[in-house]
Amino acid sequence: MIKNVIVGQSGGPTAAINASLCGVYQAAVECGANKVYGMLNGIQGFLEGRYIDLSEHIKDSLDAELLKRTPASFLGSCRYKLPDLEGNEDTYKKIFSMLDEMEIGAFVYIGGNDSMDTIDKLSKYAISIDSPIRFMGCPKTVDNDLALTDHTPGYGSAAKYIAVTMKELIRDSFTIDFKQGMCTIVEIMGRDAGWLTGAAALSEDDDCYGPDLIYLPEIPFDIHMFRDKVGKLLKEKRSVVVAVSEGIHTADGTYVCQLGGGSDFVDAFGHKQLTGTATYLAGYIAGEFGCKTRAIEFSILQRAGSHVASITDIMEAMEAGAASIRAAFDGETAKMVVFERYSQEPYINVTALKDVSKIANEARTVPREWVNEDGDYVTEEFIQYAKPLIQGELTTIYAGGLPRHLAVPEGLRER
Amino acid sequence: MIKNVIVGQSGGPTAAINASLCGVYQAAVECGANKVYGMLNGIQGFLEGRYIDLSEHIKDSLDAELLKRTPASFLGSCRYKLPDLEGNEDTYKKIFSMLDEMEIGAFVYIGGNDSMDTIDKLSKYAISIDSPIRFMGCPKTVDNDLALTDHTPGYGSAAKYIAVTMKELIRDSFTIDFKQGMCTIVEIMGRDAGWLTGAAALSEDDDCYGPDLIYLPEIPFDIHMFRDKVGKLLKEKRSVVVAVSEGIHTADGTYVCQLGGGSDFVDAFGHKQLTGTATYLAGYIAGEFGCKTRAIEFSILQRAGSHVASITDIMEAMEAGAASIRAAFDGETAKMVVFERYSQEPYINVTALKDVSKIANEARTVPREWVNEDGDYVTEEFIQYAKPLIQGELTTIYAGGLPRHLAVPEGLRER
Repeated sequence: MIKNVIVGQSGGPTAAINASLCGVYQAAVECGANKVYGMLNGIQGFLEGRYIDLSEHIKDSLDAELLKRTPASFLGSCRYKLPDLEGNEDTYKKIFSMLDEMEIGAFVYIGGNDSMDTIDKLSKYAISIDSPIRFMGCPKTVDNDLALTDHTPGYGSAAKYIAVTMKELIRDSFTIDFKQGMCTIVEIMGRDAGWLTGAAALSEDDDCYGPDLIYLPEIPFDIHMFRDKVGKLLKEKRSVVVAVSEGIHTADGTYVCQLGGGSDFVDAFGHKQLTGTATYLAGYIAGEFGCKTRAIEFSILQRAGSHVASITDIMEAMEAGAASIRAAFDGETAKMVVFERYSQEPYINVTALKDVSKIANEARTVPREWVNEDGDYVTEEFIQYAKPLIQGELTTIYAGGLPRHLAVPEGLRER
Repeated sequence: MIKNVIVGQSGGPTAAINASLCGVYQAAVECGANKVYGMLNGIQGFLEGRYIDLSEHIKDSLDAELLKRTPASFLGSCRYKLPDLEGNEDTYKKIFSMLDEMEIGAFVYIGGNDSMDTIDKLSKYAISIDSPIRFMGCPKTVDNDLALTDHTPGYGSAAKYIAVTMKELIRDSFTIDFKQGMCTIVEIMGRDAGWLTGAAALSEDDDCYGPDLIYLPEIPFDIHMFRDKVGKLLKEKRSVVVAVSEGIHTADGTYVCQLGGGSDFVDAFGHKQLTGTATYLAGYIAGEFGCKTRAIEFSILQRAGSHVASITDIMEAMEAGAASIRAAFDGETAKMVVFERYSQEPYINVTALKDVSKIANEARTVPREWVNEDGDYVTEEFIQYAKPLIQGELTTIYAGGLPRHLAVPEGLRER
């Protein structure tokens, strides 16, 4: 019997992560949960005793609608890696004694690879101590790189932001007719997986040329081939637009941003922070061809752009949140909700459950055959895969000229 | 008697410049113009004989609606400065012989300061040769720095993009609780005028903290005062967000981006190209405080973001275009349409005409009293001035998940 529920958000936010939170909350209430708590700043904040009662924030259906439209993680997030059990049993004991005290029966963590590692560890510990608490993972990542799922909530909205913005900047890029031409390099998120960068191709239509070249991190980057391609295009067109993943690297594994002396900052999970790829390549092309260049980084705008969220993504994110709760109430634990695409046309997508241990720390990359032979554009298969995920718009709720969001819980920004 | 009309777009584009084009076209047709031509790439393209018949592109009311929502300059643009008459009479003779051959009675140029210089020169030459052709300026600039007008079409939509995006990124900025805190520096367009950067303050509301500090180019930038302010804020808050104009400079006139070795590229009008201010300041703050930093440039996204256009701006831009045509048909020449704000609450804004010679090459900056004493935030007066300009949304026309735009005329991108 599950009495209370607790939910947390972890890792980088997406435009859909709060839709999943909304799905978790509403399903938990429907399933008869007494209290639904939200950890502030994930398991890290929970260990400091920081959590809220969600019913005090989601008081009516307008609050729920605002939450679905609120960018970033409503509960705050963390990049805290739970230590291995061996030698750190105290941390686990502390967490479980807190959960028991709060009479928690189900623990849902909305996150990506690293967050599923947390669910994996907590669920294994629960089994080892015969705890009845159920641990469920709800997927989230703009990167779309979680294993065993067709796609991930958050990807569709980020892909839509990228396609919308590419369309606008491509149109802007050939406004002025520069003598030596113009080359725009757009840097898109994706350390190891090119799903987001490939979404730049979705901008192509009757009213938009689309980008000229697309480089994903799955394929070694050859800077001389790149130079020759851009040089050829500059002879044909006044403006050349190139989309690159932040994680593109040469055959020997050197990140392109490192060629330009980019930062070597490493986060808590050992991931390099990559930035400066577009700036480096724009400088390189300017030097080679003397043309005007522009480097544009979508930066966090691509994951925070909830005002252009895909309604397909938002509805699926809510459903993933609800499915994780229903599974916990059905007695499941140590599972993550995944998506299975039954049909491409019409697009039919359903939820299923997979063992979280098979997902944690695995990454799903763009298949080689979804990239053209030269490795500088995605194929029609990629476009057919991604297109359904950006369909439909969640009507933005505007107030005073700006999108309205759910008010920030106390304690997230102040020290 | 005006038979045919020609219209051009010049300078950097805005999200509203095509709404003005639409206003020019529709008013010209209403006034009985036979043909309405559009120069491709402004006066520079016209000198190469490149122009189109607009009726072949705006065929019905859907085309007109799409044009109003199309980012960048539909006709292409240029940064071509017409040479002084003395010693260059051939250029003027060529332009007027082409205009006469096309039976042009009215010439409208949609642009900013530099474009009004073109109207000024052409209208003076017309008077000197007793040409009946009327030359009218229609204002446009995201920078909002044109003289003698309350504000400029294009500013409201860019300000709205900035406020919407600031709101989303501020929410994202305190997602993760970094030990040493987090400082985000956002670089916004504005070489000499801080109108756009000040619009970052519009993001503040019940559901958003707004930026912590705002630095405009009108006020000399003191990097040590900046450091002390950020240091103090980092002790109070997990996340500090700073908006800076690309054109901020120290008391001796050195641009902050030059402190970091930024580019020294100078355009045809002698304007320095400024970029890298945010990157320099983010590196400086990281070095001083050891906190996580992020540099974000809105780049051209802020002027191309037509999917979040302000309907107030779009309607005013159309009206400015229409007013320029009606004035030409009324016998006016050498004038630019300006806005006069009759009332703040309710907001009432009307068009008027001013001598273009009084506008050309003048810049209107943010008054000192609209910035606080420390020079690091705008005042309530600034906010009350800017707020009406971002009100209301132009419904985006979506097709297949993306905003639909009017198809690109041939010859703008191909060489």
